[in-house]
Amino acid sequence: MLGARRLLGALRLCSSVSCPRPRASAKLRVRDALGVQDASGECVTVQGWVRSVRSQKEVLFLHINDGSSLESLQVVADASFDSRELAFGSSVQVQGQLIKSPSKRQNVELKAEKIEVIGNCEAKEFPIKYKERHPLEYLRQYPHLRCRTNTLGSILRVRSEATAAIHSYFKDNGFVHIHTPVITSNDCEGAGELFQVEPSRKIKVPEENFFNVPAFLTVSGQLHLEVMSGAFTQVFTFGPTFRAENSQSRRHLAEFYMVEAEISFVESLQDLMQVMEELFKATTEMVLSNCPEDVALCHKFIAPGQKDRLEHMLKNNFLIISYTEAVEILKQASQNFSFTPKWGVDLQTEHEKYLVKHCGNIPVFVINYPLALKPFYMRDNEDAPQHTVAAVDLLVPGVGELFGGSLREERYHVLEQQLSRSGLKKAYQWYLDLRQFGTVPHGGFGMGFERYLQCILGVDNIKDVIPFPRFTHSCLL
Amino acid sequence: MLGARRLLGALRLCSSVSCPRPRASAKLRVRDALGVQDASGECVTVQGWVRSVRSQKEVLFLHINDGSSLESLQVVADASFDSRELAFGSSVQVQGQLIKSPSKRQNVELKAEKIEVIGNCEAKEFPIKYKERHPLEYLRQYPHLRCRTNTLGSILRVRSEATAAIHSYFKDNGFVHIHTPVITSNDCEGAGELFQVEPSRKIKVPEENFFNVPAFLTVSGQLHLEVMSGAFTQVFTFGPTFRAENSQSRRHLAEFYMVEAEISFVESLQDLMQVMEELFKATTEMVLSNCPEDVALCHKFIAPGQKDRLEHMLKNNFLIISYTEAVEILKQASQNFSFTPKWGVDLQTEHEKYLVKHCGNIPVFVINYPLALKPFYMRDNEDAPQHTVAAVDLLVPGVGELFGGSLREERYHVLEQQLSRSGLKKAYQWYLDLRQFGTVPHGGFGMGFERYLQCILGVDNIKDVIPFPRFTHSCLL
Repeated sequence: MLGARRLLGALRLCSSVSCPRPRASAKLRVRDALGVQDASGECVTVQGWVRSVRSQKEVLFLHINDGSSLESLQVVADASFDSRELAFGSSVQVQGQLIKSPSKRQNVELKAEKIEVIGNCEAKEFPIKYKERHPLEYLRQYPHLRCRTNTLGSILRVRSEATAAIHSYFKDNGFVHIHTPVITSNDCEGAGELFQVEPSRKIKVPEENFFNVPAFLTVSGQLHLEVMSGAFTQVFTFGPTFRAENSQSRRHLAEFYMVEAEISFVESLQDLMQVMEELFKATTEMVLSNCPEDVALCHKFIAPGQKDRLEHMLKNNFLIISYTEAVEILKQASQNFSFTPKWGVDLQTEHEKYLVKHCGNIPVFVINYPLALKPFYMRDNEDAPQHTVAAVDLLVPGVGELFGGSLREERYHVLEQQLSRSGLKKAYQWYLDLRQFGTVPHGGFGMGFERYLQCILGVDNIKDVIPFPRFTHSCLL
Repeated sequence: MLGARRLLGALRLCSSVSCPRPRASAKLRVRDALGVQDASGECVTVQGWVRSVRSQKEVLFLHINDGSSLESLQVVADASFDSRELAFGSSVQVQGQLIKSPSKRQNVELKAEKIEVIGNCEAKEFPIKYKERHPLEYLRQYPHLRCRTNTLGSILRVRSEATAAIHSYFKDNGFVHIHTPVITSNDCEGAGELFQVEPSRKIKVPEENFFNVPAFLTVSGQLHLEVMSGAFTQVFTFGPTFRAENSQSRRHLAEFYMVEAEISFVESLQDLMQVMEELFKATTEMVLSNCPEDVALCHKFIAPGQKDRLEHMLKNNFLIISYTEAVEILKQASQNFSFTPKWGVDLQTEHEKYLVKHCGNIPVFVINYPLALKPFYMRDNEDAPQHTVAAVDLLVPGVGELFGGSLREERYHVLEQQLSRSGLKKAYQWYLDLRQFGTVPHGGFGMGFERYLQCILGVDNIKDVIPFPRFTHSCLL
């Protein structure tokens, strides 16, 4: 059941001897079986779940899937193998010979010599029905079974590939990976939407507070990453973050994943934006090349037209406009907005959508936001009378804000003033320390990982790109 | 500040033209500068923090470190560059020519043409002192600064490499990566030591429970991984897990990382143990080959003798004994234990230590534990009168239990009985469903990631191998 390399080794061993009976047949993943070139009767064992059964007079056709690929392996068997138990969703082990398929639909097929049903699957009870294309909303009710459908299978394989691609992008570029903490005593920016953590009431803990201080679930690893960028120069984290937001929107979750990076000795937003764009493009190219069938399935059935939209994003340079320019564009728009665009006020989703469309559906960086809209740590541009900070958001078609980042205020006295003004100086003394001992200009960004997946696959609802979605009123399993 | 490849490209560009002044000099990481072969005056800029200053009559020697490697880059400058600000811990940017070093201590050095102090560092206030080797306990007080020491720098670089190595081991072997949820409504095995999650009291949420049900921080991703192994056959997760344990021991944290894998169509513990041993050895070999200096630092200064102990573990096959044999060995031990070894009672730390020593300090798998000691999901061996389950723990020298795993009960009726007996049937209906629809024999395991790092590096206290440790009474930052 292990690595492809070992399995193919075993297969070579097996196929070198004449082997009419399935003695010592090699276990093969479906993906590896499908990849065998010039199959010539190798004895193999394949295990998986039945995706289709077609019974003809003398022949039985099965399709077996084990989740290693979207495509299933066709099994051809004598009709005598047919049984009521050999049904959609049941688990089986098939031994036989791998042969070149006479059909053009597939490269190889498995001529069965032995079929064993391991676990039955009662069609009446099984919420996933044979040959039906269930809507994603329907499948959301069954988080423990929906991964067995083609669509969720493909999405989650893409998620796995994208995770690997992000790790390798950063590793190849010399970033050190940091596990920033999930539990933190730092209530980040005094933000409201925090989850608090306490020992379950069932257990007795001597003190009222387990940690002696109130503890929360992290909303961002940024401040902890800044600690680490002061030692390793380039760092990243990729982990869960949390918002106790009372929202069931298609863009929000209570638990979601963020990719965050922090880079020392960065003096301009330009440098940061270059990394963001490169991360987006390199990761996407890697996903497209490593699981093209899975991506294609989404582009075909979930989001027709998405293939072209994605190519358009990949082949163009991302655009850059300032917040001030963005507000001007919105003011001159022929469209009527629910929220009137105005300098000094946050951009709304409708504004973001308009801006992306205005920019020809190319991702667009919006930079230099009003200081009053942003948290204390962003670097003051000192551009009175407007007074902006060196912040950047990346807006992408269909999703809106995908990245957020900024240069951080590295100047001790400027930061100290900001903190004092917000009454946070005592709580953030450690953060000030970073500026007292060998401070450097630095900046960083975060990318919402689920939104990234929505963006490349064209999946409308964020709940469908995460294995077990958590949101208001819902924490299944 | 980006990838090595791009930087080296820039460097080649720069060195191909004559460049006596540092015009358009390429920014280089310290690691890349140190790796330049046959340096011949390339113009480069290096940024980092001063690790040492040595002033001679006519020459000034600096060592600059940027966290990309343990080793620092030696800068040689005219004595006129010396200033009070050029002190230990301050951040600098140095432009100059990379030349072959006359000393045998290093391959290259940087002949400075321009030195710029970016951020000062006041020695009096800085808790890390020049040329001092601070005890790890002392450094724990400064989680925001300790990463700037050689020791923590090396440990965290090893942590980053080990993280990457684990991801590639699984990817290379065809496992799908799954983000199992951090927040869960499932109070796993009715275990006591759970953290509960609620929206912070500061915010108003319509219902009393944000999720409608009590929500906890996960203690293991196993049950969620089992869902996924029913679709993808081989899956893994690598994320934070939590225990509200009132312990300040050197082996426990409230927040720690687990590597967990789940494999379908596995019918024997032997198959599982093979993956565990291979994961341990492959990951360790990769770490040893990718950051030998960092590992060597730990082996030299933190745990003398650890190098040999680790080699001993790597070159021997791990051993296997049954729980019953283990108890017999303990009963026959000449040593007096605080807890008398007895069949049917859990092994204590002192027992684990004895067993590992008894086995010649080779990691040892202990298998087949009494059913009564283990949770409901472990597979019944049906070996009356003893009545054990197919569970396995891996004990390693110095650390004790590193892995825990088992075959899972895949038989619907056996599992149903277990759940009914524990009064959990209603809560785990979804888990029973997995056995109703195409069940397969399967098993899995978890490895404590911090314990793994302790084991290979010889670090005694678990708080020193995680960037921001969380435990009873402590949640700094």
